Amino acid sequence: MPDRGVDLRSRNVGDFALAWPDQPAGSDYIAERLLSCLLTTMSPTSKLLVDIHTHVYLPRYAALLRSRAGAATVPFIRTSTTSEGLAEDRLLILDHEPSGGRPVGPQYWDREEKLKFMDKHSIDISVVSTANPWLDFLPASQAHTLAAELNDDLEQYCSTGPSVSSSTQIKRLYGFGLLPLVPEITTSVLLDIVNQISALPHLRGLIMGTRGIGNGLDDGALEPVWAAIEKAGLVVFLHPHYGVDSSAWGDKDNGHVLPLALGFPFETTTAATRLILSGVFDKFPNLRLLLAHSGGALPALSSRLASCIDHDPVVASRLKHDARYYLGKLYLDAVAYGPEELGFVSDVISRSASYASGASASKVPNRSTGSKRMLFGTDHPFFPPLSVTDKWKSVTENLDAIASVQGWSEGDRDGVRGGNALALFNLQG
Amino acid sequence: MPDRGVDLRSRNVGDFALAWPDQPAGSDYIAERLLSCLLTTMSPTSKLLVDIHTHVYLPRYAALLRSRAGAATVPFIRTSTTSEGLAEDRLLILDHEPSGGRPVGPQYWDREEKLKFMDKHSIDISVVSTANPWLDFLPASQAHTLAAELNDDLEQYCSTGPSVSSSTQIKRLYGFGLLPLVPEITTSVLLDIVNQISALPHLRGLIMGTRGIGNGLDDGALEPVWAAIEKAGLVVFLHPHYGVDSSAWGDKDNGHVLPLALGFPFETTTAATRLILSGVFDKFPNLRLLLAHSGGALPALSSRLASCIDHDPVVASRLKHDARYYLGKLYLDAVAYGPEELGFVSDVISRSASYASGASASKVPNRSTGSKRMLFGTDHPFFPPLSVTDKWKSVTENLDAIASVQGWSEGDRDGVRGGNALALFNLQG
Repeated sequence: MPDRGVDLRSRNVGDFALAWPDQPAGSDYIAERLLSCLLTTMSPTSKLLVDIHTHVYLPRYAALLRSRAGAATVPFIRTSTTSEGLAEDRLLILDHEPSGGRPVGPQYWDREEKLKFMDKHSIDISVVSTANPWLDFLPASQAHTLAAELNDDLEQYCSTGPSVSSSTQIKRLYGFGLLPLVPEITTSVLLDIVNQISALPHLRGLIMGTRGIGNGLDDGALEPVWAAIEKAGLVVFLHPHYGVDSSAWGDKDNGHVLPLALGFPFETTTAATRLILSGVFDKFPNLRLLLAHSGGALPALSSRLASCIDHDPVVASRLKHDARYYLGKLYLDAVAYGPEELGFVSDVISRSASYASGASASKVPNRSTGSKRMLFGTDHPFFPPLSVTDKWKSVTENLDAIASVQGWSEGDRDGVRGGNALALFNLQG
Repeated sequence: MPDRGVDLRSRNVGDFALAWPDQPAGSDYIAERLLSCLLTTMSPTSKLLVDIHTHVYLPRYAALLRSRAGAATVPFIRTSTTSEGLAEDRLLILDHEPSGGRPVGPQYWDREEKLKFMDKHSIDISVVSTANPWLDFLPASQAHTLAAELNDDLEQYCSTGPSVSSSTQIKRLYGFGLLPLVPEITTSVLLDIVNQISALPHLRGLIMGTRGIGNGLDDGALEPVWAAIEKAGLVVFLHPHYGVDSSAWGDKDNGHVLPLALGFPFETTTAATRLILSGVFDKFPNLRLLLAHSGGALPALSSRLASCIDHDPVVASRLKHDARYYLGKLYLDAVAYGPEELGFVSDVISRSASYASGASASKVPNRSTGSKRMLFGTDHPFFPPLSVTDKWKSVTENLDAIASVQGWSEGDRDGVRGGNALALFNLQG
């Protein structure tokens, strides 16, 4: 679509020149915009809103959390009594969970609730993932069994759900599978589960935390897994859970704010940086890694990272490219709650090519380029509004941010809202 | 100076209209630009390069570090033997110091070395601060005595140094003093030292870490100290030292990269966020807080922070303003190594006013506004080049970044290079 808010679909062909009064009729510029507009108009999926950051505790997983109500360690769901004497389910997932855990209900496990939420916010498609802490807390054999079962469950959750419209095969629900990434798991089990996920038609990737099989994602033991994931073309959604050591947060009661607002992005930033430093992106250049929360602090710290690498004899010669190059290998959700944040993230992706070893490209970034790797998300069912509202602020803020980024065309915005996800997850029908 | 690279100082008065061919001769626009240009030309300080992030271990402090060569805990300086059999001083300041500490020499304590570095990089003025870990590791009485002595030492370091030119009273060296912020110090001692710093003419602020007197900077016990600092008009330079728990970095040898590139900014981000959440900026709205490393990850996470606050019943009603408002109360150094980073940081400062409670201002930021709170720095003598070079990359990268930010006028760039520091530290002669 043209940048200027002119919707050509409502115009006569003879009017086209009127849309660009400063261009001569028939110019290349008009021809190019016209083609772009026609392609957009012709594609039934061009305006879909796709949520790629949306979680579920599948019923089998929620049952496990309930069965752990008396467990000494998180995660578990337990029933407590409110100050009004009512029974209330509370979810505890963090080691030092503030505020007695968060209230949970069917929005965490019931597919109908997910679809209602999607309808309310005009979300056409959700690419659903199990919420943290996944299988991290389980012994290897149980993690293995449950991963296989939950992947089958999620396939069914998606495949038996509705389609986007009666005229398309595209479903409203797709999923990220789970790997049993826990200590003492074998590589062959991990590769089997990668194969299982690849074979399930509605799973288009997998979600993982940052611990790997106990030593983080820069663990050399994971290389065969990265190789298999790369070969299968699965998208890895990297998501935080542990934050950083809670001693950082001090002794004041700030609710969940510090671990969620800072700890989560710090963890993602650290994991992605360790991956970069380990050379994983040099070894597996086609790995498709999607970072939660717009990559946390990684975009903002990427030039500092490059400088620190340049100045440290231990790592200065290790990587093929400047650290900033690798940010262009990533996909980032657009869950950053502000237009300046999204614009900056797209700048950082856009400039990445100019940091390839030996590159002579201009270092002035074109925000449009970066937008192609950014994807709308909601983080549902987390961040529920504190009081009854029609739409959730966590959704409208992220949509408003996408709509307000300076320097993005309408086509760029449509891409971030859905088009990029359709391409990345191959949902083109 | 006009935005278009036209230097009016080389033009005849009659040419002025030629500089803006799209403006009618004598227009308000030309008059305004002309006035701005004349003021710039007339002021001898308008083009000074001022480094506000530059460290020293004063000789008295370096002697203390040497005296601790056999200490069980950091910090200390000890002499080790290189693989070539040469004696080499190594500085250890971090709990899990990688690579056996960093080589140190006279650039850490000798004023002549600081001035040579300044000359080499055309830095006119440095506002020097003691490097971390300051007095954090000392018992209260020793920290008290040493703070007072080091403040006097730094005053002498500055006052007996050279002036910018023979025609001005402006010196080439100013300083940030030290407070003895350690457990068991009394408030009255802290207030005495604030008074001492205020009375020393070449000290224009104080540097502090993030631990306060043991419980962080959101400790209510510090309120009288903030009040005194605010009243004295001293600039607080908030600087990291501890990072986050090193378990986050994993077991691979990545040198200093992770604690420096990520841990330091994480710590600053956390400290500033805890200050915001504590209401310090509501209580002390004229406090002048300068954050190291462009505020770390705080700008990038500020909308997420605002969202997390909005969604948490513990804190949702605590503050007077949206969290993003408080970023406009801060000053941020321009030590971020990239132009996109600096542009984004200035966007975040620029938009802050629109997040004041009840504000109806446009939320589209004007980068120029934000640039007024950003100040050039080098982090000297840290980040020395790995091989012999004429200029240090850590300096040229930050200067190049300032020169390359899109949307900053030449006046904005001059401000970040020095004009803002002259105003903030009242160095106008």
